[in-house]
Amino acid sequence: MPVTTFVPDPSAPQPGQLLARGVCRLLATHDFACLEEFVPERGKRVDVMAVGPKGALWVVECKSSRADFMSDAKWQGYLDWCDRFFWAVDAEFPLDLLPEASGLIIADAYGGEIVRMPDEQKLAGARRAAMTRKFARDAARRLQGVRDPRI
Amino acid sequence: MPVTTFVPDPSAPQPGQLLARGVCRLLATHDFACLEEFVPERGKRVDVMAVGPKGALWVVECKSSRADFMSDAKWQGYLDWCDRFFWAVDAEFPLDLLPEASGLIIADAYGGEIVRMPDEQKLAGARRAAMTRKFARDAARRLQGVRDPRI
Repeated sequence: MPVTTFVPDPSAPQPGQLLARGVCRLLATHDFACLEEFVPERGKRVDVMAVGPKGALWVVECKSSRADFMSDAKWQGYLDWCDRFFWAVDAEFPLDLLPEASGLIIADAYGGEIVRMPDEQKLAGARRAAMTRKFARDAARRLQGVRDPRI
Repeated sequence: MPVTTFVPDPSAPQPGQLLARGVCRLLATHDFACLEEFVPERGKRVDVMAVGPKGALWVVECKSSRADFMSDAKWQGYLDWCDRFFWAVDAEFPLDLLPEASGLIIADAYGGEIVRMPDEQKLAGARRAAMTRKFARDAARRLQGVRDPRI
């Protein structure tokens, strides 16, 4: 009888990516357009960036476990890129770990709910314009890459 | 012997759409991110909207034939949505039909060349912000529709 070894599928979505999918579905119901794994500047990456109908910019960081959260020392930097910042976690997550001033989304791979709406810290106009422009260009280039893979 | 009738494939790209694909490939080489069939406001549609690295907005209308061009009475309205406006046509197109102040791109389905760069008519800031925001949201939603078709 052959011995088989379990090898994880490298293309399978990670838990944080599944949370991000649910977050994007949720935010679509709030009329926010989302881009996953958005890079606001070189070396920084946010799990979900969302643009609202009037231009509001929200960032959502998706944490699949305590370890995932504890290893992220850079989250306060995310506040520089958005009007509102949220954590998204699943229903098992130890919520008392999370800073109370942040927004909170409870989600799974299929959707979620905004549990706590954070205060708004409005971005300055020039930063907002630069972020919106980068979001626009990144989203369009990713779409073109899907529609016309020769690019 | 059965009689077969030629029925056009409704999902096959139209000549104008093939031109648009080539235009998007061309503009990508100029570091412009493109969105096809962009709707700047209800009832208006432009063939290609492109956002440059510093936020310039270009509109390209793709005309596959004289008839296609002559039936478009609304092109001057497109000037309200961009800093520069271009026609894109193939090498067979009768160029003397085209207004000389407009930009000109000669293209096919695979690429093209900017033959005439039009003068820039800078959009007002509020219009630019609104167009960039709509471009950002439309591109992200289309991408989400591809990545997560359940939406």
